[in-house]
Amino acid sequence: MPHKLAPVAVDAMGGDHAPGAIVQGAINAARNGLAIILVGPEERVRDELRRHHAAKSLPIEVHHAAEVVEMDDHPGQAMRRKKQNSIRLSFELVKAGKACGMVSAGNSGAVMAGAMFVLGRIDGVERPAICSVVPALKGNPLMLDMGAVVDCKPSYLVQFALMGELYSRKVAGVHKPRVAILSNGEEETKGTDLTRAAAAALRKSSIGFVGYCEGRDILTGEFDVIVTDGFTGNVALKTMEGAVKVVTELLKRSLYSTAISKLGGLLAKKALDGMKKRMDWREIGGAPLVGVNGIGFISHGRSDALAIECAIRRVRDAARSHFVEEIAAAVAPTEALVEAARAEAAQHAARHVAPTEA
Amino acid sequence: MPHKLAPVAVDAMGGDHAPGAIVQGAINAARNGLAIILVGPEERVRDELRRHHAAKSLPIEVHHAAEVVEMDDHPGQAMRRKKQNSIRLSFELVKAGKACGMVSAGNSGAVMAGAMFVLGRIDGVERPAICSVVPALKGNPLMLDMGAVVDCKPSYLVQFALMGELYSRKVAGVHKPRVAILSNGEEETKGTDLTRAAAAALRKSSIGFVGYCEGRDILTGEFDVIVTDGFTGNVALKTMEGAVKVVTELLKRSLYSTAISKLGGLLAKKALDGMKKRMDWREIGGAPLVGVNGIGFISHGRSDALAIECAIRRVRDAARSHFVEEIAAAVAPTEALVEAARAEAAQHAARHVAPTEA
Repeated sequence: MPHKLAPVAVDAMGGDHAPGAIVQGAINAARNGLAIILVGPEERVRDELRRHHAAKSLPIEVHHAAEVVEMDDHPGQAMRRKKQNSIRLSFELVKAGKACGMVSAGNSGAVMAGAMFVLGRIDGVERPAICSVVPALKGNPLMLDMGAVVDCKPSYLVQFALMGELYSRKVAGVHKPRVAILSNGEEETKGTDLTRAAAAALRKSSIGFVGYCEGRDILTGEFDVIVTDGFTGNVALKTMEGAVKVVTELLKRSLYSTAISKLGGLLAKKALDGMKKRMDWREIGGAPLVGVNGIGFISHGRSDALAIECAIRRVRDAARSHFVEEIAAAVAPTEALVEAARAEAAQHAARHVAPTEA
Repeated sequence: MPHKLAPVAVDAMGGDHAPGAIVQGAINAARNGLAIILVGPEERVRDELRRHHAAKSLPIEVHHAAEVVEMDDHPGQAMRRKKQNSIRLSFELVKAGKACGMVSAGNSGAVMAGAMFVLGRIDGVERPAICSVVPALKGNPLMLDMGAVVDCKPSYLVQFALMGELYSRKVAGVHKPRVAILSNGEEETKGTDLTRAAAAALRKSSIGFVGYCEGRDILTGEFDVIVTDGFTGNVALKTMEGAVKVVTELLKRSLYSTAISKLGGLLAKKALDGMKKRMDWREIGGAPLVGVNGIGFISHGRSDALAIECAIRRVRDAARSHFVEEIAAAVAPTEALVEAARAEAAQHAARHVAPTEA
């Protein structure tokens, strides 16, 4: 029998539609039997609970947090100066074991900063990462890092691969995850100094590393874990969002212009709704942090009640899997990591002996 | 009156549908008055011309090239070992002034290698780049580099910006191009060491540099020139292609499943055709090389006759603009470039005094 989990801490003040949508999402999750701690200014949160007619019998507690991190706050400064902010206090609950994990739709830099500040990184992890779950044609591939670490070393990418593989196996339930590094071509000779060194190391690891994948493979679902630096990952994710938006817009226009009056409009709406449902980021439930000492999820800034409810469920799934406890073992120095370090040292030396400038 | 241009050299052997589609595209362009030199095995090319019923009166010459670069040939080796290959000989015609420019739908690495090998880079250009023209909601932004230079220095990005700005102004006819660096956020503090150093330098330049843009801005048309390293550019472009394909596929499925029999299918087809036409890479006509001493265009490997015809027209437009002659002046050391060099030196020093490892 699984051990009874502590409740999920939910930052009531994060996101464009906070606290209303957040509280509503928490209520929906609680109605489905998940225990919640809402973290935010107590009076305001209780008002929202009343406004949404939350029954007293629901498993929802409120934990007072006097301060709120704004979207334009500097993440590190917010954690240090606003000691009573709802993100930080959510992580404090996780650290104390009073919550099994937390989710916030607020300032994502501040969520990562809060995780580092309160939970810290797991022994041996060089840089924690933000995973994103991608709404692919089949399956839901993980992609990491999505923006936590923009300037990467090969060993960071190697660890992202090891942590992502563990998450895919333990939380997403993929039997033998196919792990790839995102690159500008499939051949081994492609990529940058960074990706080549990381790929060389991962080829010697015990995980199912299949080499490079390309931008066009992200949404196909051929790969379960897609590894990249935080800069490229963020650009790819936002490029994907932008492309989906533009294509949908163009299709909507041509459907409305070619179709016969109301019927065309109706068909268009149905089709777009169908597609939107398939690619619905809200059902994905946010992006888990990996490499920090506990469970934290970043939910989309535009999260509505459904997105928050899904995210709460994902936090629960992650907590049940105990993947956090296994990360230290997953990233422990193996031949792959030692190799990556060696490649790095060699590259460094090469740059000094013979500058790359031709 | 504009000086009469030399013909456009067309690699008859490049691309998935060569030589048939290439020859057909050349014939179509010639029928619209553009003079062409088809470069490839003479007998084979003449057979194709006959097969497509090309009138003898069309302004098409054939220039014999005994060898062909295959898609899996190593670009540099192909140029050195296959001295009679159609890509190399096309560039020889450009160099000799017998062609105003060339286009190939073949191995893109080999096209860039051929350009470097035969034409060489323009004085002062550190690294030539591949521009891509993006089918945006409005306008047709340029994005560079798309894969020629994967490991970049700040000064390369600065030069990409200067060359892209010139191309946008002189060839695309944009009055005052808005130039942005692709990054993981809009704020100055975002980006990598690379993008921050390049942005700092460009802020001091005289071009219309507007700062960072994000992946979601590529297709909106808000920016005229989007600057990035060849790795990120390639990933973004392929991610975009992949997303468009997946969304189209999903929409097609939902349209066919929700709509009422034949009418639904018809509407679906019309809508998809309308959108495809707007985002048609074939009409864009290929990706110009910038920074080499002459005009070369890489056309899509899947190019059909329409794509080749459009590319030939773009080569002509580029040749008419004389932008190649102005590149040396555009990249000549300015305060921006000197600043980028200084930033690079400082970064380099910093890495050695205090390693970034925390």
